[in-house]
Amino acid sequence: MQSEHEQTVGHLGEKAVLARIFTALAGSSTAEIGPGDDAAVLAAPDGRVVVSTDTLVHGPDFRLAWSTGFDLGWKSAAVNLADIAAMGARPTALFVALALPVDTDVAFVEELARGLRNACDELADGCAVEGGDLTASDTLTIAVTAVGVLDGRAPVLRSGARPGDVVAVAGTLGAASRGLALLFDRFRDAVGTPVPVDEARLDATERVDLAAQLRPTPPVALGPVAAAAGATAMMDVSDGLLLDATRMADASEVTLALAPGLDEAALRGGEDHALLACFPSDRPLPDGFRAIGVLAARADAAVTIGGTPATGHLGWDPQRDWDARRG
Amino acid sequence: MQSEHEQTVGHLGEKAVLARIFTALAGSSTAEIGPGDDAAVLAAPDGRVVVSTDTLVHGPDFRLAWSTGFDLGWKSAAVNLADIAAMGARPTALFVALALPVDTDVAFVEELARGLRNACDELADGCAVEGGDLTASDTLTIAVTAVGVLDGRAPVLRSGARPGDVVAVAGTLGAASRGLALLFDRFRDAVGTPVPVDEARLDATERVDLAAQLRPTPPVALGPVAAAAGATAMMDVSDGLLLDATRMADASEVTLALAPGLDEAALRGGEDHALLACFPSDRPLPDGFRAIGVLAARADAAVTIGGTPATGHLGWDPQRDWDARRG
Repeated sequence: MQSEHEQTVGHLGEKAVLARIFTALAGSSTAEIGPGDDAAVLAAPDGRVVVSTDTLVHGPDFRLAWSTGFDLGWKSAAVNLADIAAMGARPTALFVALALPVDTDVAFVEELARGLRNACDELADGCAVEGGDLTASDTLTIAVTAVGVLDGRAPVLRSGARPGDVVAVAGTLGAASRGLALLFDRFRDAVGTPVPVDEARLDATERVDLAAQLRPTPPVALGPVAAAAGATAMMDVSDGLLLDATRMADASEVTLALAPGLDEAALRGGEDHALLACFPSDRPLPDGFRAIGVLAARADAAVTIGGTPATGHLGWDPQRDWDARRG
Repeated sequence: MQSEHEQTVGHLGEKAVLARIFTALAGSSTAEIGPGDDAAVLAAPDGRVVVSTDTLVHGPDFRLAWSTGFDLGWKSAAVNLADIAAMGARPTALFVALALPVDTDVAFVEELARGLRNACDELADGCAVEGGDLTASDTLTIAVTAVGVLDGRAPVLRSGARPGDVVAVAGTLGAASRGLALLFDRFRDAVGTPVPVDEARLDATERVDLAAQLRPTPPVALGPVAAAAGATAMMDVSDGLLLDATRMADASEVTLALAPGLDEAALRGGEDHALLACFPSDRPLPDGFRAIGVLAARADAAVTIGGTPATGHLGWDPQRDWDARRG
């Protein structure tokens, strides 16, 4: 029998850990040249690719007491798939830079690989991990780069929204931030240190919110649907609806007028990775999208709620808000 | 006047830090859609792209006492450009996931951006930073993903080498590891903590070696040249010639027979990011490459030196060797 120590990535070494990861990912590659060489070769049938990168860092983005390896693999895939979808593109490949403490159990790494794979299978069929990098770090870090294709369509930017367009969202708003609040409020000890989640202490709604935080399910397939339906602008809601809507309004030089009725979690909570999109008002919204406002000519305020300018803490700033979120 | 604290990324916040980075990169983008949206859109004229990712982590990969922000930006670009070149491809874009301690000075981040930009300008004209991600972390981490194009050529893999081919390299071997040894031997205090480099304590050769470690200059432009010249296999030498040659020999199922004469630093030292390539023996090597061996039918040993199987510590394992390199 092997001791626990012998199952750490530091003891096993790079080659053995990569072999475990490759086993977890086996058969999923769809690339012309997949993992294992200096670089992968991906098809770009219409002569363009869409590329984005997003990182999860232990501390500001997750706590190991709350997230499993599977959760982290899933979430690191999902947040990147959402960025590709937000361009109206279809994700085809993920590249994963994994920086691991040397005492990380290899079983955790295998679960992380399975989480990446399952998120691709369930959210973006045909997309797979096609490469990556493994290094040692004191801070567990997962930096994912996602690549997608446009299938001949034009990309949908943040800057294309026009006065008169309908503002719509697909996916949940607020659940992930309620899930985060549950973790901070209910699963820390007396001195604030995270403790493992006991699902028995959660009701059904709370479990849904927690799942939205740990394993978000952005509507990735609706990105190309929105593009095909004529979306004039689109982005994913990663840092909070008001903050991201402000970015879209500024990029498009319009005022985004939200209807009243959205609660505080929906307005200011991040990490759901819903799709925020604008559509011409003269045709029906595609299935999966619901109207939440309209666009007006640019006024002083970038975003209004029921006619009143949005104020206060609009959303999440990973640099400035990090200390405030320490457990 | 602002206090020092007010120039940290934690105080300034994401938006202000991104603005500084964008200023440092201004005018460099060559993409259809560059930084600032959910994702970039890159041209892929021949219907394929080449993608690779590689990470620098504070501790195993660099020490802030020894590397400037410029050095880190340069090196994180260079090592990724080398991976694209090693496929015979031409780099077109970098994506940079930057995880920064909140007390990082914004001037350091601006220097890092300038290092990224200068490395692209000098090593891979036309390539630029086209996107990225900024997050907080206790451990400074730079994960770069590079994208390139093949201009209609087939990718050059590790697995295409054939018995009878000539083994050649372009670029330096051993200088970067001599530079690392200089840092560990000469620029640590009595208890082993890194101290800033005093160039006055180095002779001209040592300065070249140190520069190879801190700001490597892989022969990126020679990747496509090698492909056009009929290279049968290629990779970059990142972890040590013997270790990387073993990987190529195993992938191609051949034995790589090195001529005698390479010193220990050239054989076992990593991080030069030279290009190791195999060419048909019936034509001249392209300019910039020099022969270092030949390929034979696979025997027991993957790599031989003057006919003797290579043994010992072949190169660098980031998981297993991390503790041994602690300063």
